[in-house]
Amino acid sequence: MAEHIVALSGGVGGAKLALGFAHLLAPGQLTVIANTGDDFTHLGLKICPDLDTVMYTLADLNNKELGWGQAGETWQFLDALEKLGGEAWFRLGDRDMATHIRRTGLLAEGLSLSDTTLMMCEALGIAHPLLPMTDDLVATMVRTRSGEELAFQHYFVRDRCEPEVTGFRFQGLENALPAPGVLSALGREDLAAVVICPSNPFVSVDPILYLPGLMQALKDAGRPVIAVSPIVGGMAIKGPAAKMMQELGMPSSALAVATHYQGRIDGFVLDEADADLRAAVEALGIPTIVTKTVMITLADRIDLARSVLEFSRQLSA
Amino acid sequence: MAEHIVALSGGVGGAKLALGFAHLLAPGQLTVIANTGDDFTHLGLKICPDLDTVMYTLADLNNKELGWGQAGETWQFLDALEKLGGEAWFRLGDRDMATHIRRTGLLAEGLSLSDTTLMMCEALGIAHPLLPMTDDLVATMVRTRSGEELAFQHYFVRDRCEPEVTGFRFQGLENALPAPGVLSALGREDLAAVVICPSNPFVSVDPILYLPGLMQALKDAGRPVIAVSPIVGGMAIKGPAAKMMQELGMPSSALAVATHYQGRIDGFVLDEADADLRAAVEALGIPTIVTKTVMITLADRIDLARSVLEFSRQLSA
Repeated sequence: MAEHIVALSGGVGGAKLALGFAHLLAPGQLTVIANTGDDFTHLGLKICPDLDTVMYTLADLNNKELGWGQAGETWQFLDALEKLGGEAWFRLGDRDMATHIRRTGLLAEGLSLSDTTLMMCEALGIAHPLLPMTDDLVATMVRTRSGEELAFQHYFVRDRCEPEVTGFRFQGLENALPAPGVLSALGREDLAAVVICPSNPFVSVDPILYLPGLMQALKDAGRPVIAVSPIVGGMAIKGPAAKMMQELGMPSSALAVATHYQGRIDGFVLDEADADLRAAVEALGIPTIVTKTVMITLADRIDLARSVLEFSRQLSA
Repeated sequence: MAEHIVALSGGVGGAKLALGFAHLLAPGQLTVIANTGDDFTHLGLKICPDLDTVMYTLADLNNKELGWGQAGETWQFLDALEKLGGEAWFRLGDRDMATHIRRTGLLAEGLSLSDTTLMMCEALGIAHPLLPMTDDLVATMVRTRSGEELAFQHYFVRDRCEPEVTGFRFQGLENALPAPGVLSALGREDLAAVVICPSNPFVSVDPILYLPGLMQALKDAGRPVIAVSPIVGGMAIKGPAAKMMQELGMPSSALAVATHYQGRIDGFVLDEADADLRAAVEALGIPTIVTKTVMITLADRIDLARSVLEFSRQLSA
């Protein structure tokens, strides 16, 4: 029987596993939902970093060297902008600019973020639906030790994650509606599992899970929700997750990630490097598998997707 | 005594002579006023082709091979935009994009077109003031044989000047105010001459001259207004001027250009190739010199500027 997977993703790490599922599953068997809490308006352009990272990854346009942005990217725009006295701290590549210009133009015409995403994904030949978590404005704000609250991209890119984090606030989230297609994907008869990709739990996954109606829809679905740890051997594969955890007063470990998700997930995936944590995670009441989660090659991505799929079958059995 | 020149310019041809003056004259001795009738909003960006061509030329950033845009330009943005299903008929280069993004952003903050131009010119180290003819919206519309009226860039770039022209309309011109600095430049005590650079008389120069108050200011100034023919040997050095003239039922000749300007200029500059037209132009009551007006090298630009300056002294004597 055909099974449908809903993958919840932040940026780079999540996109890797989403790509694994995209290769493993036929069109119609996968819906990817991306965090939009990182979105912001910069230089007059609506920029959706996680959505774009997933889109570029699924379209095989992602830059494998940089780990973000488009392959074959160049920086002429930014160089010229700097000479004109413009803000150049957010690294907008020349090819990447097309995405932001196209999206901003379509939004100005009255299309929703979902519609613009659909149009761009179709143009790029992406077979599986990619949905923003919401069409409404949600802005992740980072609370810092100094008392200053920073917009996410200012914290993440401009300030290079240097400020000490004390918490987060998702501005607009309480009034945001899940984008069209989000709840219906979770309500599908053939839904096999919901996979929380290895993304930052605090700033990439929580905004999705905290969307009004989302947790209820997961409960109503009655299918396993499986999280893949973004922390391996105490370190984040990419991004500030481990640093954030330490600043928030928790150990930067896969166990702490599982604890963070406790009550919201039905299964957890540990990397082989963290096999010794399995008993502790299971002691939280969370069934756990240990597999290779560090995805270097495309085969790694597909293998991990396959392991998660098999795990979901065990959990449903 | 220091003399001040006001140069009225369209795009490429006008910018060449403006550059000649910029090299010949000290800062404070030159004001360049550029046509903005070609301006349009495209992909959400305010684009000012003539203003940008003059700015790039004065900053020595202009693309000498293409004859428009920036030197070392690349086209990654446009390539990616086309793949996303966006409009790619207007050739926006990656470096050029920075100008449009910067300008659009500053305008959105409430700055005027003059202010944004000033800020960008300062950032690029341009010593002489470059002014848009107006801060108000003026849109050159091209009337065509088919009855359709085309926005200028649609006629010029998208339709490659193919439609047969029957006339022009400058939408918004009757209510446009000359930009700050335009009338005061024309009212300067030390004004030596106003030079109409070799630009398209119909779509680059007329919008400037037809600005409310502009002709009166030229009359009040009482200094020679000198036009350099953009038509040489019956052909336009660049652009559709000659084709337009034929379609409008006039010969495509420097004499017809002089006739078009009759009553509005005090001197005319013919190329050596058109020396035989001198008597006919002078018969219109317009003093005329013959010199080399085709500007290939920087020295050509400076030489022509010098010839025009000397001519203005003869006319003032």
